[in-house]
Formats: sequence, C-alpha cells, structure tokens
Amino acid sequence: MIKAFGYAAQAPKSPLAPYEFTRRDPGPGDVVIEILYAGICHSDIHQVRDEWGGATFPMVPGHEIAGRVTAVGSAVTRFAPGDLAGVGCMVDSCHGCPSCREGLEQFCDHGPVWTYNSVERDGKTRTQGGYSNVIVVREDFALKLPKGLPLSHVAPLLCAGITTYSPLSRFGAGPGQEVGVVGLGGLGHMAIKFARAMGARVSVFSTSPAKEKDAANLGAHDFVLTRKDGWGAGVAGRFDLILDAVSGDHDLGPYLGALRRDGNLVLLGAPEKPLSVHSFMLISRRRNLTASLIGGIRETQEMLDYCGEHGIVSDVEVIPVEKVNEAYERTLAGDVRYRFVIDGATIKR
Amino acid sequence: MIKAFGYAAQAPKSPLAPYEFTRRDPGPGDVVIEILYAGICHSDIHQVRDEWGGATFPMVPGHEIAGRVTAVGSAVTRFAPGDLAGVGCMVDSCHGCPSCREGLEQFCDHGPVWTYNSVERDGKTRTQGGYSNVIVVREDFALKLPKGLPLSHVAPLLCAGITTYSPLSRFGAGPGQEVGVVGLGGLGHMAIKFARAMGARVSVFSTSPAKEKDAANLGAHDFVLTRKDGWGAGVAGRFDLILDAVSGDHDLGPYLGALRRDGNLVLLGAPEKPLSVHSFMLISRRRNLTASLIGGIRETQEMLDYCGEHGIVSDVEVIPVEKVNEAYERTLAGDVRYRFVIDGATIKR
Repeated sequence: MIKAFGYAAQAPKSPLAPYEFTRRDPGPGDVVIEILYAGICHSDIHQVRDEWGGATFPMVPGHEIAGRVTAVGSAVTRFAPGDLAGVGCMVDSCHGCPSCREGLEQFCDHGPVWTYNSVERDGKTRTQGGYSNVIVVREDFALKLPKGLPLSHVAPLLCAGITTYSPLSRFGAGPGQEVGVVGLGGLGHMAIKFARAMGARVSVFSTSPAKEKDAANLGAHDFVLTRKDGWGAGVAGRFDLILDAVSGDHDLGPYLGALRRDGNLVLLGAPEKPLSVHSFMLISRRRNLTASLIGGIRETQEMLDYCGEHGIVSDVEVIPVEKVNEAYERTLAGDVRYRFVIDGATIKR
Repeated sequence: MIKAFGYAAQAPKSPLAPYEFTRRDPGPGDVVIEILYAGICHSDIHQVRDEWGGATFPMVPGHEIAGRVTAVGSAVTRFAPGDLAGVGCMVDSCHGCPSCREGLEQFCDHGPVWTYNSVERDGKTRTQGGYSNVIVVREDFALKLPKGLPLSHVAPLLCAGITTYSPLSRFGAGPGQEVGVVGLGGLGHMAIKFARAMGARVSVFSTSPAKEKDAANLGAHDFVLTRKDGWGAGVAGRFDLILDAVSGDHDLGPYLGALRRDGNLVLLGAPEKPLSVHSFMLISRRRNLTASLIGGIRETQEMLDYCGEHGIVSDVEVIPVEKVNEAYERTLAGDVRYRFVIDGATIKR
C-alpha cells in the first residue's frame, strides 16, 4: 500500500484536518499521480457537511485534480512517469451499460465510482479525493492535461470546466447563437469563457450590479440585472441557450421567458426545493427545461484539448491547504474569483 | 358577403345557440368550404367559457373542420370545387417571421390568426369557427384530406391528430422506442394509434383500471395504473418519450422518473397551476421536460397524408348540433370515446 496524506473531515460539519491514509499499490492498469493542485468545488462542501445524505467519514474531498505521473502499471499505454495527468469527478464505472458504452460514464447504470465519498467496484474500498498528496487511478479515468497552461488554473477544468463545456457543446453554442449564463461563480465564469470561445454572443444574468464589470472582463457581451421584478421583459424570446448555475431556490419563469422557440434552459445546480414551472412558458414557444451533469471521460478529454488549443483556464486563488476551512467559508459567501485551488506543495506530513 | 349559420355562445358560460352571421366573399386566394363535420375539442369549452381570458362574443367555436370545397378564388391552384378540404386551428399567420418561414406558423411572432376567437390580419374582422355550415379560408391554410376514410372520423385529426403526431414525429418515435401516453382521451387515443403505427412500443398511464381494455383495443402494448403512490417504481428509467395529455394538476415526478437518460416528457395540456419539478429528476439522467403545440400547416398535411396511408382515424361519436351543449358536459365528465363530432348536415337554419 502507498502511504498518503491529506485533509479530511472526520464527521459531518467537522472542519477539515490533517489525515493519514493509504492508497492501493498500482495494478497493471493504474497510474500513480502526485497531486500538484486540487480545486475546491462547492459540492465538496455539500458532501463534507453531508447535505446530500449518505456521506461516509473520514472524507478527503476534491475532484479537480491536476498532477504529475510518478509510476504506471505494466499495462498502461497512455501515460509515462513525468507526464501531466488529471482526475475529475469519477475514477471508475461499469464499462458495460449503454451509458458507459456511449462514453457517458457519469450516467452509468450501476453508478459511477466517484472520486471521493464513494466505494470502488470491489464493493468495499472507500474512495478518497484530491486534497491529498497522491492518488492511484485506472488509466482510462486519468486525463491528459494541456501543456503550456499554468497547472493551478487547469485543475478546476476537471469539474467546473466540463460541467459548462458539455451542455454548450451538446446544444451547439456557436456563432449566431445567444447564450445566457445565470450566476457568476466557479461554473459561470467558465461558461462565459467557453461560450465566448465557441463564438456565441454571451450574456450574464446576475442580481448584483457589481458583477457587470467582471462579466465583461471575462468576455461577456451583455449583462442582465435580475434584481427587480419584471426584469425579464427586456430579454423575452432572445436566447437560444441558458445555463443556470444557481443552486439556491429561484424563479425559472423569466429565464424560460427569455428563451426563443425551441430554446433550452439547462440546470447545472441542484436546488433542494422543487422548482415551479408554468407549462404555458414551455408550450408557448416549445421551450425545453433540461439539465446537465459533468461529462463523460471522452468529452472531458475533448474539453481539456479544447482548452489547450484556445488557452482557456480558470481564474483561481491558490491557497495553502491550511486555509481550506477558511476558503470554504469564503466560497459559501461568494467571496472568490472564481475558484480556490489548493497548492499540493503545502500538503505535507 | 356569404350568409353563414352556426351555433355560438353569446357570452361566457352561456349555452351555445343558433346564430346567423356572415363570411367574407372569397378573394383570389380563398377557398369556400361547406362544413360536413366539426370535432369538439376540450379547448372549445375553455374558450367559450372564457377560461383562458380575452374571449370575444358571439363566438362560434370549432377548429376540427372537414368539408367539401364549393368555390375557389381565381388564384387558387391546389383546390377545385368538389374537393375534400379541412381547416385546423389556424386560418392565417404573418408568413414572414422565422417561425412562419420554417413552417411553424403556430409560433408566428405576430401570433397566428386562430380559426375562431381571434382577429384576421386586417385587425378588425373576428374569426368564427367550425360549428357552422360554411367557412372561407386562404388556400394555404386549407388542408387536403385523405380519401377513402370516413370523413366524420377524419375531422378530429385537424387538432387532436396533429397535436399528438407532431411530438411523436419530432422525437423520432419508432421501432425500439418505448413511448408512454398519459391520459386516455381525445389526444391520448390518437397518440396510441400514431405511436403504434410508427412502430414504437406503447404504454398507457391511467388512474382508471377500466381503461386497460380500451388502451389495448386502441393498440397499446402495456398499461400502467397510476392510482397508488409509488406506482413509478416498476417503470423507472424505461421510456424514451412520454406524451402527457393531462391538463389538470398532477405530479410530474413519477413520469420524469419513468424516462431513460435523455428521455423527453412532452406536455400537451396546460394545467393552470404551475408544475413542481425536482431538478434532481432532470439532472440524474439528463432528462428533458418540454411541450408541444399543435403543428405547422406543412406538418399537418404530412400527418393527414400519413393517416391516409396507414388508415388512421379518430374514434368518434357523431352528434346533431342540437346536442352540442350536452356533449360539452359529457366531454368535461370524460364520457366520450373519444371525440364528439358535429354532423354538419344538422346545422341548418
């Protein structure tokens, strides 16, 4: 077994603290990755605090992992020691169900093995995430990282990147299309960058006038202030696609109203309360309400390659691991532009 | 002007009663149609009772019109006196907006001219519908009716037919697909016939065990009783496409749960209350909630041609116009298999 060291929660809502554990010795198909950077995703906080239920402890969170390969199993062909490598939200899946065969492992009929707070396919080994110094992962769930980009800025692509790239790609965001982004945070800022790079006209919806300048700096063409009732009137019927990254309770009506005929409103967040939808808003212009969940491994690689070609990275604030609990509080307060990333060099015994 | 005679409501909720009015003399592009049969659609009742707001009176309802051409304008090329002809929910649109240019006149940016309870493009002439003896309509909004099918059974295709054919066609219902139909009424019975003819496996969802036999007789392969809580467990993740024809308040959760990954739940009815949607049901299998609204003129013609080729008609109960008020009450009570059709021969002064 490989000795590993990281930061874990020992119980729901307990702060993260140093934690020693083990990783498996690499099998023939595994790669061993020294973790250099790990992004902090809002869903890490949900899980550490057991807000989704079923959490297991101790829990080392983190599924935005960028690092360097230090060893490979005998059957590994795509990686060699010294290569950059990333790990996202999944480390395994059944490989046999229709979704896996289509490269959509996130919808695996047997449930994908999540990078942490999950159990390996052996049915017993608990997975532990990226707030740690090393990870051992099947070659086919390791991603090639683009060269020439700052690695700390690349880490968040493994979740925030693919979560926004996938629906933009699936719904054909591109020249002549009007794309809206609801919520300017970790997901939202990546959505702006991708939609802009794909050639769409991009608008940001936000309740905060202070975000208008930020949105423009990130590449948005337009800004829609959603603070006052009736804000939707000025943008009715305009958008082909709106990505909604807000996970709190909010009224979908004006966003549906802002869609053209056959437009798509794609939920990326998961509000706890059920959403209220007036069927008339769907019927009157044949609009669609749908959702998206990260992306498959093939598509994640495609996204990373796209980022390499277009020089797209996340805006980050790098922190030492000791500041992770403080970073959680700041994330909850929306006080981050736009992703905290833990510097792996600070994760030492 | 052409003298016309029909049944109209004089005010919201007043019963329908004999009514004399006029139709325009046919212009160069118009056809004059003697109405032989007119279907009774649930939406006729909504409008006559002003339940959608904005109704104008006197109102002659009816947008499932089958008849015979008696005269044509000088520029008409597709119809000649003696031809069968139909009129559906629309009699005109702007012809210039993107939706009209794509043949989706029902989504005309300027609003289509509805067959009744609407105003012609001259901005003043009120339209009157099919519970009457004659209609004058632009050639391009008149439909060719299939030959060799009983005309009384053809009339409901103009609304109930296209409303169900359009989403089945759009979402590719066919061999290997599992299609669900919620609600076995005027729309539902047509949905079963079309989905079956297209080669899909068809299931009917109903709260009434008595409808199981009817569903089978109409061609459904399977029946799902939705009376008890928890009914959805047995069909979770099974359907590619579900058409929901229920216009009352109901829980969408189990229907969303019954969809496969990337499956579509299509609302055909318009419940007054907003619907409650758990985002998790959309995200977990990337499901879509959408809607459909009749169909464009080109697609309506395609549907009628399809019915001619496949011998598809509506199951109807033909009534004399004097029984229209009674038929309304029976429609509201669900006491019709599956569409009332007024015999035009009884609409006389």
